[in-house]
Amino acid sequence: MTDLKKERQRAESDARTHGYYLNPDAATLEALLEGLKRNEERYGYPSCPCRLASGKFEFDRDIVCPCDYRDPDVEEFGHCYCTLYVRKDVFEGKTPFAPIPERRPSEKQSRAYRLDIEETKTVDNDSKTKMKMWYCRQCGYVCFREDPPYVCPICKAKREMFSEIIINTDFQG
Amino acid sequence: MTDLKKERQRAESDARTHGYYLNPDAATLEALLEGLKRNEERYGYPSCPCRLASGKFEFDRDIVCPCDYRDPDVEEFGHCYCTLYVRKDVFEGKTPFAPIPERRPSEKQSRAYRLDIEETKTVDNDSKTKMKMWYCRQCGYVCFREDPPYVCPICKAKREMFSEIIINTDFQG
Amino acid sequence: MTDLKKERQRAESDARTHGYYLNPDAATLEALLEGLKRNEERYGYPSCPCRLASGKFEFDRDIVCPCDYRDPDVEEFGHCYCTLYVRKDVFEGKTPFAPIPERRPSEKQSRAYRLDIEETKTVDNDSKTKMKMWYCRQCGYVCFREDPPYVCPICKAKREMFSEIIINTDFQG
Repeated sequence: MTDLKKERQRAESDARTHGYYLNPDAATLEALLEGLKRNEERYGYPSCPCRLASGKFEFDRDIVCPCDYRDPDVEEFGHCYCTLYVRKDVFEGKTPFAPIPERRPSEKQSRAYRLDIEETKTVDNDSKTKMKMWYCRQCGYVCFREDPPYVCPICKAKREMFSEIIINTDFQG
Repeated sequence: MTDLKKERQRAESDARTHGYYLNPDAATLEALLEGLKRNEERYGYPSCPCRLASGKFEFDRDIVCPCDYRDPDVEEFGHCYCTLYVRKDVFEGKTPFAPIPERRPSEKQSRAYRLDIEETKTVDNDSKTKMKMWYCRQCGYVCFREDPPYVCPICKAKREMFSEIIINTDFQG
Repeated sequence: MTDLKKERQRAESDARTHGYYLNPDAATLEALLEGLKRNEERYGYPSCPCRLASGKFEFDRDIVCPCDYRDPDVEEFGHCYCTLYVRKDVFEGKTPFAPIPERRPSEKQSRAYRLDIEETKTVDNDSKTKMKMWYCRQCGYVCFREDPPYVCPICKAKREMFSEIIINTDFQG
């Protein structure tokens, strides 16, 4: 199986799992999958074909496909930033594609450029110290990330439904 | 995008993720989505349009859509209590809709009425102390809730497959 | 509802959740569901109809349907070991079924035979001590298992994306 076929199957399976569709235009879809394959070869992970990756996984994590911004973008605009994942009404041509603002913080975007040329030893350490255990107050889904996801992958509750799990160990003397 | 459209899209995406369909009758579906929208405006969360909410999230958690009872109800009866989410055979008209018993404990139902008029400071505290970390012994899915879910959202194992995760810290002197 | 119907519905719902299809051949599908039902009755859990179970859940966990090997097998070969779960292109007849190697370690396969006749008190203790909390470095999904899953059920990242969550409690004197 060619790598491109693998990218397609991963994306198809992922789209179905989350209730999305892939871009209905065959040429656009192929170009996006080609971009994912190229990034997989270059960095070892399929980072977003429409964004600049730094090559440091911990820093790029939010833009590894499916990126953190896909779910709120599909919900609000009908498709993700790349137009790889689209909503049913967009897939069926009932809602047109529309330009969408970049949800990734501009500070991260500009740091990505600098990471290409600088040595940044601290990236990994920085992010590890910020990892927290979160749970969805609606369905109980647990995840371990810097920030909670925009949408709960299990019950589709919004980010505000997430709270941190804190392990208390009390001592009294 | 109107709020009603948002409710519809959340429900559609959620149905696809879990392998369900939405009610095939357009008028019924619209009425249910209207109910969800109304509860979202009133309480800040889309509680079940067919049940009385108290307005206290911690108490209403089990009936926020998709409610805790949906998965076992769809499995046993072919649709949820509201008929918002339906199974394929019901969606296709091969199995008729049937009256289904209310799975929510009657004690919770009657407390919901009292919560409307009384001040119940203890609701939040009560529920927080009962939260536990559960895992599915079949696939390992972890969640943080009072009780385990009826069905594992990842591998569809039954509630009995869940066990509590206990963090041991042993001291010896 | 007959038990066979329940097995079918669980499998259908599970297939949709993960973006798969069930075997398109009605007779094969029925035979597989019959096998699952028989194991459910015999062992209390639907272990794989094509593999020998020991009857000890902790030991058989990896082959309870959907088994641990399904996701990498569907990805690589287009269907699971049993052919119960198939990929879209296989479902549509565009890719033929192919013989696939058994991914379950041969050491586990041969132990399953011995477990049928021997008393193995240590099975449970063995496996419990090896349980770890894992998280997907891409999306944060958390699970509690001996090993991480082959594919993240949320974002479809590969096994290598999983790391262990370690709870540190530091004392200094």
